[in-house]
Amino acid sequence: MRFELTILGSGSALPTTNRNTTAQVLNVLERFFLIDCGEATQLQLRKYGFAINRINHILISHLHGDHFFGLFGLISSMALLGRTNVLHIYSPPGLEGILNTVLNPQFEKTPFPIQFHSLADDDPTVIFEDKVVTIHAFPLRHSVSVYGFFFQEKKRLQNIRSEKITQYKISIPEILAIKEGADLVRENETVPNSVLTIDPLPPRSYAFVTDTIITRKHTELIKNADLLYHEATFLHADKALARKTMHTTAKQAAEFARELMVGKLILGHFSSRYKSDALFLEEANNIFQNSIIGTDGLKITVPE
Amino acid sequence: MRFELTILGSGSALPTTNRNTTAQVLNVLERFFLIDCGEATQLQLRKYGFAINRINHILISHLHGDHFFGLFGLISSMALLGRTNVLHIYSPPGLEGILNTVLNPQFEKTPFPIQFHSLADDDPTVIFEDKVVTIHAFPLRHSVSVYGFFFQEKKRLQNIRSEKITQYKISIPEILAIKEGADLVRENETVPNSVLTIDPLPPRSYAFVTDTIITRKHTELIKNADLLYHEATFLHADKALARKTMHTTAKQAAEFARELMVGKLILGHFSSRYKSDALFLEEANNIFQNSIIGTDGLKITVPE
Repeated sequence: MRFELTILGSGSALPTTNRNTTAQVLNVLERFFLIDCGEATQLQLRKYGFAINRINHILISHLHGDHFFGLFGLISSMALLGRTNVLHIYSPPGLEGILNTVLNPQFEKTPFPIQFHSLADDDPTVIFEDKVVTIHAFPLRHSVSVYGFFFQEKKRLQNIRSEKITQYKISIPEILAIKEGADLVRENETVPNSVLTIDPLPPRSYAFVTDTIITRKHTELIKNADLLYHEATFLHADKALARKTMHTTAKQAAEFARELMVGKLILGHFSSRYKSDALFLEEANNIFQNSIIGTDGLKITVPE
Repeated sequence: MRFELTILGSGSALPTTNRNTTAQVLNVLERFFLIDCGEATQLQLRKYGFAINRINHILISHLHGDHFFGLFGLISSMALLGRTNVLHIYSPPGLEGILNTVLNPQFEKTPFPIQFHSLADDDPTVIFEDKVVTIHAFPLRHSVSVYGFFFQEKKRLQNIRSEKITQYKISIPEILAIKEGADLVRENETVPNSVLTIDPLPPRSYAFVTDTIITRKHTELIKNADLLYHEATFLHADKALARKTMHTTAKQAAEFARELMVGKLILGHFSSRYKSDALFLEEANNIFQNSIIGTDGLKITVPE
């Protein structure tokens, strides 16, 4: 039952030899969510072993090229590989027009349906939900409209104690109800659910925050997340530049992670002006010890 | 005085682990011409050591995505790196509108001028010319409008024999005229140019032909080229498929190279359906021995 993040691109606007522009895949129990899609994302997906047509949901934080220029090639390849399934794309408004202009001349007919979902709310909004996961989008603060994403595994069913099934001769319909949290009610006694079951493993969560200054408007949503990816485009020595370009420093990201009491902080979106990431790690670790440096190809698993 | 081709992408529409989509750089005496620009071309340019802002001319054969989807990221990076020089882009009509739709929202103001040159002629046309090189575009035959490109180094000046300068006391203005081919005219004698000079090295040439069935309409132009890059999307066993999709087989490309009497044939644009390129080489070499397989990163120098 995997909950695993793979970083495909950890650089900022200008890709470098080691860092592609932003893209990530989150695997939640074999559902594959693509988060941002910088140029060459399809190459990174192939390199790290993901089948592109297992992706049904693409979340684009904002419409700067280093976060979506990979969509053109990815969607073309999905079509060439015979995709027929609907593809859902979530982004601030404007992407549909751009994609149609670029892609429509490529195909005699649209090879598979694309469903666009516009992100425009000022408050956190559920943009996707199924049996196992809920995804919220929440607005950030940058030079253009940007959204963060919060992936929350749903609470799992209670685990019923097998010896109790024998002891109370519990029927199948009763088992289903007990797993949902019900007590066992018999003529002369009520056995509380807590006696019959073991609590499931706690749900896991991941918050993706990029291209923003620190904003505390929606921290309640992502507080205590197991994983937080936060951009750290600059070192704190360049905080004036960070402010001016509406980006975050490693120190600011680490202070935010400490305040949110997250399990682990992953830094990324490093400016190509820095030759090494060692100072980013040092700066963040001084404040929040569970900080790591995002690198292309890095996998981070949240254990059960 | 280099005349050197570097293959950046040797695959066809669907990139693979080893083959990016089409892109090449031709270095003609330190002028860098980019030919096609598939996704991730900027990454390949960096990988193989080209400074992206030394490129002033980009030639796009046609508007299928695997030949131009890398322009968005490349142009963005040129801007981020502070380019101010004009960039010339040559392509069949339609590219300007697509680029404007994608790029205009990315920049507060256009960071450098882009000059679009539309390819629409039925006959070979000079699209660029300077002191050292002439470039022709010529139409090919595919499902959309496609152009090939022919790069021809200009004839160099005659090399004057130094001993003749002494012997005839030749003046500087006379030297310049003799290098251009003039005879030396004195009162009582005329010394023919052939006595005074050595012929320069012959001019070098390169023909780029992709996404087409074999067309013999403009073979006079590219006959005897030192290098011919020709697509070979399919093996000849799949010639019906090649015909249907308006592509070429390795055998057809080699027959064409033999007929044109080119110096060397480079095959590329291989369909991702083939697991190995060994059969392509075998099929071509049976017909034209100077055939080689294009691979990403391959450099081919035409010696002086």
